[in-house]
Amino acid sequence: MATENRNPEIRKDAVNNRLVILSPARSRRPSDIKSKSQSKPDSNPTQCPFCAGNEHQCAPEIFRFPEDSTSDWKVRVIENLYPALSRQLQVKSDNEEHRQANGSTGEVSLRGFGFHDVVIESPNHSVHLPDLSPAGIAVVLLAYKKRIEQLCAVESISYIQVFKNHGASAGASMSHSHSQILALPVIPTIASNRLNTMKEHHNQTGKCSLCNINTHKLLINESTHFISISPFASTFAFETWIIPRYHSSHYHQLDEDKAIDLGGILKLTLEKLSLQLNDPPYNLMIHTSPLHIVSSELPYTHWYIQIVPQLSTIGGFEMGTGCYINPVFPEDAAKILREVQLPNKE
Amino acid sequence: MATENRNPEIRKDAVNNRLVILSPARSRRPSDIKSKSQSKPDSNPTQCPFCAGNEHQCAPEIFRFPEDSTSDWKVRVIENLYPALSRQLQVKSDNEEHRQANGSTGEVSLRGFGFHDVVIESPNHSVHLPDLSPAGIAVVLLAYKKRIEQLCAVESISYIQVFKNHGASAGASMSHSHSQILALPVIPTIASNRLNTMKEHHNQTGKCSLCNINTHKLLINESTHFISISPFASTFAFETWIIPRYHSSHYHQLDEDKAIDLGGILKLTLEKLSLQLNDPPYNLMIHTSPLHIVSSELPYTHWYIQIVPQLSTIGGFEMGTGCYINPVFPEDAAKILREVQLPNKE
Repeated sequence: MATENRNPEIRKDAVNNRLVILSPARSRRPSDIKSKSQSKPDSNPTQCPFCAGNEHQCAPEIFRFPEDSTSDWKVRVIENLYPALSRQLQVKSDNEEHRQANGSTGEVSLRGFGFHDVVIESPNHSVHLPDLSPAGIAVVLLAYKKRIEQLCAVESISYIQVFKNHGASAGASMSHSHSQILALPVIPTIASNRLNTMKEHHNQTGKCSLCNINTHKLLINESTHFISISPFASTFAFETWIIPRYHSSHYHQLDEDKAIDLGGILKLTLEKLSLQLNDPPYNLMIHTSPLHIVSSELPYTHWYIQIVPQLSTIGGFEMGTGCYINPVFPEDAAKILREVQLPNKE
Repeated sequence: MATENRNPEIRKDAVNNRLVILSPARSRRPSDIKSKSQSKPDSNPTQCPFCAGNEHQCAPEIFRFPEDSTSDWKVRVIENLYPALSRQLQVKSDNEEHRQANGSTGEVSLRGFGFHDVVIESPNHSVHLPDLSPAGIAVVLLAYKKRIEQLCAVESISYIQVFKNHGASAGASMSHSHSQILALPVIPTIASNRLNTMKEHHNQTGKCSLCNINTHKLLINESTHFISISPFASTFAFETWIIPRYHSSHYHQLDEDKAIDLGGILKLTLEKLSLQLNDPPYNLMIHTSPLHIVSSELPYTHWYIQIVPQLSTIGGFEMGTGCYINPVFPEDAAKILREVQLPNKE
């Protein structure tokens, strides 16, 4: 596939305000880039605690869909057996100390209070998220919504990160299809940067950055309520965003109709990335807004999904600067992904 | 080795103001953590362009040490054959356009102008940085200094990142010991965040964050002019900083005496990490200050070296939030690294 000859470019957008260096790989065309490590590790389903029948091997269940199902469950939300944060460390009273600050060194430490849950996306070990129907994916998406709504009720939780690691080199320790929900007592850097960047853009233009996102040469697909694009300042090769076409600050505002529509475009996106890039490991992140934003912040906050196929390693430059070198211009990635032909499944 | 039982903690410091979750690994003690992939890949020295005798296979040389050496060079600084930024894209006049901004979308793009150089640290394929003597490492450190001084003379360069990727999974494409220097026309996010954080701490306390860094339970080693520590808000397990004990904004203020002293503590640090963690791939970054800071910024800017052994993969939580989950408390890492006994080399 022919792509334009391009010179390196440094870009940033009005969503994350993050610098990225777009620098075409000298050795290969964007359409030749494939994952070296395939995502699916060997596994022994009989020993997998996420499989139907092994529920007793898991940490406690929070809920399942359908709610009254027994062995015929579709999705289970459970506690993480090895949580990064502890639900036991909540501060019980205003007098109890939660935060320690050292004035002379400027250091701050907080108790590691929070929730770390797992969403098992299917009872079947060999079924991965894009193998489900749009309505089947919607059940997973609505499980996120329900769990977020539960966590919103915990006063000291400020931010909820839903994410999915697919493949060992993307950080998945279990091969059975699952995602994770981490509820934090603080707003993490990337979320607060995004809030500030989108606020500034709104102040300058009166517009929401994501309602007015640049789709010129960057659009991949669209559905009734969503678009998929290669973002203008893509941090990673073939990074893809799925954005609601309607203005919405929080992911958990998603209703059932929109969840099925989102299930469809998410399925299409994951199938296209898998076919084009040779089943790469990937990370999927839902970027929503902090929980306790005020009404004046609603006009410029807008949730979206970021999907990053793992095609390269991170080196000292990226770690030292926070600026990533991306070998594929998003205009080229979007064209390639737009034109991927999926096999007709009859 | 016994380490205290610890609950998860959320921390940040007055240098980077970056949230980190310290969450002890349930399955193993900090002293049992080892690298899974060793850093040294197989290689064929006869085909390595960085080896003495193959200089003609490299991109153009910028300089070598000793300057009048021929085949007996110790260090060579060369252009990168595949630069991320292009030295050809410099703007020639004030009228020529360098930056494009789209007012309605808030997007900004700049020409990808910059320099991307390689420092070959030894003529010998099998000699790695810590194999050199302190004075031998000083030659490498002074090559960084000289190249930075040359790049400072280019008006549109704002920031210089020196970094070293050791081992394929840390991003090294060549196994011959080398580091890289990237000169940028912009100040990257992490450097400007650091500048702002250290400024705020200085405003509040009148002190430089790094002159007054917390060493309680965190000190690993000290030399005449430097300390090595596990930082209070360590982003990664066994992350180590080497900090000048004297106040200094820019790395390139390093003189020859201090370079030899730094060579000694850097050698010790790399040898300890290699022995304790089973020769892990690692990234080394020199965090210096932006080039064109004004005199009022000098009191609170202070360079240091960050070394990150690669012991885990990055997943969707880290990518989505910018907040890392570190399974080793820095107090435990410092104790372990303090007590590492290196074999006596006679």
